[in-house]
Amino acid sequence: MELVELATSAGINIGLAILFFALYSVFRKQHANAGVYFTRHLLRERQRMKVAGEEKDSFSLESLVPSAGWVKRAWDPIEEDILKSSGVDAVVFLRVFIFCMRFLMICTIVGFGILAPLNFTDTYLADNPSEKEEHSYGTLEKLTILNISFGSMRLWIHFGVLYFISLSAYALLYIEFKHITNLRLEYLAGALPQPDQFTVLVQSIPKPENEELSYSDNVDYFFRRFHPIEYLSHHMVYKSSHVTKLLNELERLKLKIFELKQKPPSERKPRRAGFCGLFGPLVDPIELHMEKLEDVHRQVRQCQMEFRQKKKEVPTAFVTVRTRWGAAVTAQTQQSVNPMQWVTQWAPEPRDIDWPNMEIPYNQIFIRKIVAAVLAIALTFIYYPIVLGVKVLENLDTVKKYLPQVVVDNVLNIPAVSFFVQGYVPALLLAVILYICPSIFFSLSRFEGHPSVSHQERKASSKMFSLLAGNIFLAAVLSGSLISISESFTEDPKSIPRRLAEAVPKQANFFITYVMTTGWAGMPLEILQSGSLVLNFLKRHTVDKNKPLLDQVYSLPYYRTLPTVLFFVLLGLVYSIINPLILPFLLIYFILGYLVFRNQILHVYEPAYETGGQYWPEIHSRTIGCIVFMQVLFIGMFSLKGLKSASFASIPLPFLSWLFHEHCRHRFLPIFHNFNLESTMKKDLVDEESGRKDEVLNTIRDAYLHPALRYVDLNVDQNSKTQRLLPESSSFVEPDIPV
Amino acid sequence: MELVELATSAGINIGLAILFFALYSVFRKQHANAGVYFTRHLLRERQRMKVAGEEKDSFSLESLVPSAGWVKRAWDPIEEDILKSSGVDAVVFLRVFIFCMRFLMICTIVGFGILAPLNFTDTYLADNPSEKEEHSYGTLEKLTILNISFGSMRLWIHFGVLYFISLSAYALLYIEFKHITNLRLEYLAGALPQPDQFTVLVQSIPKPENEELSYSDNVDYFFRRFHPIEYLSHHMVYKSSHVTKLLNELERLKLKIFELKQKPPSERKPRRAGFCGLFGPLVDPIELHMEKLEDVHRQVRQCQMEFRQKKKEVPTAFVTVRTRWGAAVTAQTQQSVNPMQWVTQWAPEPRDIDWPNMEIPYNQIFIRKIVAAVLAIALTFIYYPIVLGVKVLENLDTVKKYLPQVVVDNVLNIPAVSFFVQGYVPALLLAVILYICPSIFFSLSRFEGHPSVSHQERKASSKMFSLLAGNIFLAAVLSGSLISISESFTEDPKSIPRRLAEAVPKQANFFITYVMTTGWAGMPLEILQSGSLVLNFLKRHTVDKNKPLLDQVYSLPYYRTLPTVLFFVLLGLVYSIINPLILPFLLIYFILGYLVFRNQILHVYEPAYETGGQYWPEIHSRTIGCIVFMQVLFIGMFSLKGLKSASFASIPLPFLSWLFHEHCRHRFLPIFHNFNLESTMKKDLVDEESGRKDEVLNTIRDAYLHPALRYVDLNVDQNSKTQRLLPESSSFVEPDIPV
Repeated sequence: MELVELATSAGINIGLAILFFALYSVFRKQHANAGVYFTRHLLRERQRMKVAGEEKDSFSLESLVPSAGWVKRAWDPIEEDILKSSGVDAVVFLRVFIFCMRFLMICTIVGFGILAPLNFTDTYLADNPSEKEEHSYGTLEKLTILNISFGSMRLWIHFGVLYFISLSAYALLYIEFKHITNLRLEYLAGALPQPDQFTVLVQSIPKPENEELSYSDNVDYFFRRFHPIEYLSHHMVYKSSHVTKLLNELERLKLKIFELKQKPPSERKPRRAGFCGLFGPLVDPIELHMEKLEDVHRQVRQCQMEFRQKKKEVPTAFVTVRTRWGAAVTAQTQQSVNPMQWVTQWAPEPRDIDWPNMEIPYNQIFIRKIVAAVLAIALTFIYYPIVLGVKVLENLDTVKKYLPQVVVDNVLNIPAVSFFVQGYVPALLLAVILYICPSIFFSLSRFEGHPSVSHQERKASSKMFSLLAGNIFLAAVLSGSLISISESFTEDPKSIPRRLAEAVPKQANFFITYVMTTGWAGMPLEILQSGSLVLNFLKRHTVDKNKPLLDQVYSLPYYRTLPTVLFFVLLGLVYSIINPLILPFLLIYFILGYLVFRNQILHVYEPAYETGGQYWPEIHSRTIGCIVFMQVLFIGMFSLKGLKSASFASIPLPFLSWLFHEHCRHRFLPIFHNFNLESTMKKDLVDEESGRKDEVLNTIRDAYLHPALRYVDLNVDQNSKTQRLLPESSSFVEPDIPV
Repeated sequence: MELVELATSAGINIGLAILFFALYSVFRKQHANAGVYFTRHLLRERQRMKVAGEEKDSFSLESLVPSAGWVKRAWDPIEEDILKSSGVDAVVFLRVFIFCMRFLMICTIVGFGILAPLNFTDTYLADNPSEKEEHSYGTLEKLTILNISFGSMRLWIHFGVLYFISLSAYALLYIEFKHITNLRLEYLAGALPQPDQFTVLVQSIPKPENEELSYSDNVDYFFRRFHPIEYLSHHMVYKSSHVTKLLNELERLKLKIFELKQKPPSERKPRRAGFCGLFGPLVDPIELHMEKLEDVHRQVRQCQMEFRQKKKEVPTAFVTVRTRWGAAVTAQTQQSVNPMQWVTQWAPEPRDIDWPNMEIPYNQIFIRKIVAAVLAIALTFIYYPIVLGVKVLENLDTVKKYLPQVVVDNVLNIPAVSFFVQGYVPALLLAVILYICPSIFFSLSRFEGHPSVSHQERKASSKMFSLLAGNIFLAAVLSGSLISISESFTEDPKSIPRRLAEAVPKQANFFITYVMTTGWAGMPLEILQSGSLVLNFLKRHTVDKNKPLLDQVYSLPYYRTLPTVLFFVLLGLVYSIINPLILPFLLIYFILGYLVFRNQILHVYEPAYETGGQYWPEIHSRTIGCIVFMQVLFIGMFSLKGLKSASFASIPLPFLSWLFHEHCRHRFLPIFHNFNLESTMKKDLVDEESGRKDEVLNTIRDAYLHPALRYVDLNVDQNSKTQRLLPESSSFVEPDIPV
């Protein structure tokens, strides 16, 4: 690649990015878009005022001038502010960017200070013009390791840099792990009393011996007997699909009535009460709906009464105990003689629970996990063939062969259709496929039966990363499907490092472009929220002008964003030594990402749960995986470049990485998996000394009541849709958001 | 192989076995050998009478007639008797034999009922005389799978048998796991109050903040704060090598004085009191030794006083709590915010503790484990080269080249020497190498820093099995060192099943002979206890005629016997379908083994600890490993024999095994790793209701006092050597042993 090509490409992408950011800075000043760009703020304001927002459309010319004020506002808040406003998980997500910025900074300094001059002054490509021709290498390739001569002693510098970069990565990862661990500990120590601190999820409750008793009685008996001091109360889980349907119907009716009431009476046409509004006397639609509402409400009450009967019970319960110490003990020890019964674990936050999933019997979970794993692996392996299939469309002549002549003549030969099918459909389809993959993985993780959404997201995120690393990275590098790659790998596993070393450097240019087109472009798209923006626009101008600004509140979709970010971490690690040229591009990506996601976390995404940083251990392991990949690659690289001794001397590195990982696992991981008795006891003592203990216990007593059993409000004077989405525990932390 | 050859070989080995068993039946009737064959009984008698055994040498001609009475006596006791007399571990060990007998019985029926006729009536070997010639196959090979024609549909029967045998193995393993789990639960539920039920081992105690305080104070502070209700007392571990030396000296002196006192006064020559008995006035040796004894005793007391100072403290303690429930909670939860501090685990039984190992700092254990693993792998890989080196001796001419001419002429050319060096030295060296391997692994496992001997034995046993399976089985089958095998395997991993399938059937004859020579021969050697027998004989006739009969009490060396037995399980599984001929020989081995070890467990070995069957989960996993090996082998076998579809249809089997293993891990393993709150609470309630609680707590309070701190007895009127070896908790179970 020549400098001019790179500059052109970078110029176009930077221009586009600036354009998008400018658009954002204008759009965000329009009050009409507040529902897209200041969702969190509106949500809180709505809650405070308890009325639907009134539009105060104050148009000014200033609001049409692009500005960079949002950058300052995204940059300014310190970590503590973000912690307060969005919780530990959001901070952990941002720490990934900080880790990458630091790491890439080191790599860039080393890369351009040492490696680039070293590579540039060597003569391999000049000496081997044939190779230069074959891969059409340009001036820029002289900066990469490709230009190092065979067996050159200069490779020892690369070897030194490899060790240096590995050690820096360990050091930075360790610092992050320590920092995040401290954040988690501070969060746990400082957290206000919340129901999940006192509650244990009990699965696989055995059938009571006396057939007349219910599961609920059995829970009562068991915990009164074996945790006599600690046991406070419990809530069963019920089969609730019927009631859930009714409750949804109820919500729909409430919304309908709310909308009808907004309209002036003249617009409300009376309707007939009979079948499909065709027969019967004319009635006011509000009255009609109110009647229906009351009917549904009656049914709900009826069902809720029936729930208490044992036949609707699921052998799963939330048991609340008197102290955090008791919860820690109950959640972390084996309760029963049979380890498949009375299985306990920490209860997720009430807002984080996936209630329908709670009905899955415990003994199905094992089988479900296997099925989900098989399906996920299958999807990862057939992803590439699917993509290939879509790409066939690009070559229209191949497609034409398989279609009936009539279609080809009448449809495909129209120039516009042909252009559209060839030029846009494949790209669109690929984007759609890559967009639905995380959703499929999320459904699979949900199918596995995890009780909480956060857990499902974490699992989906790990599956998605395998798909990206396998299909985007490996497939691009080794140009083949994952099936063929893994086949050739199992045939000759010893050659893996060598084959990677041959293929990886050649794809550097592809990935530089990838960083610009996919990475940089992703950020403006993220901040523009193009989907929501268009929807919001359409709704405001077509369906209903009085529609509330705030239609939906989303939480940060970790299972979508995290794998992508980690994919760029992989690129950074792999190419840091091979091709220093990619580093500044990645650095820009991470700086952009840091700014954009800070902005989004502060103003748009409302956290749906708080796991206290449970994402980090998984990010950590995956980063270690990338480091090991890089190290194995260099074992092959040195041997390929004719310096066997350096190759041999690199073999300890993967083991070093493994040791580092093991050390972190011992040192930090238990803090993420267990709750220790020391800090739980301390918090209990604080409660007791402040005399708040009984108050706390009263507050949390009904937090885990099954949602189908909750009191149903018939008040239709507010839009309950957004209400329902507000996290239940958010009253504990009321963040102060700058707008 | 022809029938005649097999019969000859079997005849010789059976004859030898019968001879040895006859010898045993005679030897065991000699009172002089009681210390070898009825160690346990003597031990208990000694304890009861508190005097050294008097020899009542009642010679009768009957005692020289071989008899089979011991077989009946070994067979008669039911499992419950063995459980009472030797504990769960011994029963688990015997259950391995029962599992194998059942499994091999099924295999033998299927093998001789279906497979043997099926193989015999095929014609592959008759059609391919060249192959028959090449490997010198005889009539007996016609019974094996080697005689099945290429692509024959008969292989579908083998396929069915493979599934049937796999499923039977799962079923039998499941039955055993369930049975042993029940044994363990019964043992735990029925166990008398013992100190380990109430005690937790706390490692990595942090330095107290106040420098004047000791670790002991810190333990007190921490547990009083965070386990206020449960905490009872604690005992620190101390650096004790100096005192241990003094205590050994004390024991030596006591023994010496005891022996001197046994002699008539006339034989006790007065000695000089000065240097080396050369100068000074003449004194009575007893007085001299008594003086020394008192001096050492004074030193011990002095050291014991110093111990209480903090400088000798190790940051490890045994914390005793008031209830089993409390111990379960404390041992199984994370105590401190930092998971590397206040690390708790179940305390081993007092008799099971490896005190010197307790002084290893907790943060060294991670590194020690890595070093031990590296060394163990290294030993496994260089074992075969070592063996090859020894085998060089068999060819004396090669050796001669490397020795100086003088040695060759004067020493090696003597016929007797040459015969000895060629014929016996290699065999002897090999036996010695195979004998010391378990000891090396045991030292390695000890080096890893496990606090209890039982744990060390378990780890050593697993390492030893890898060595046997890798070096004896794989090396024999693929005829090469483990290094070359693993090299060729990593080069082409896909060919593993095929290569195994080619090589394994050919070695069947070798392993039939191996079962007879090593397996069968091992049993008489085990029951004869040749080593102890010879030592006992020599001692009685040379050193000291009045030497007590009972010199040493051993426990069953699991780390030696278990890997060997499991190796035969591997043989049984691998060859069950390939060559039914091996089955009866293995069956005999396991029946013999069952009888012999029953006898030994009842009469010879005194259990040194009780783990409640902790061996079983490891035996189970290793058996599953063998099953998977067999299944992979058959994937290759079917494809080799030209029935690709059967090969393909066998691929699910290893996954099925893995699923079965996972299920067992979920269902049973927690019972072996954790103590549940239900049963601990129940046992606590029983204690409380019976009013024995305080008595129990008083008994156990000082069970974990460091041995160097224990009260030292100056009473020399009994032989303390065997006293010391008697398990401390054996007073709880006094078995009724038939002699």
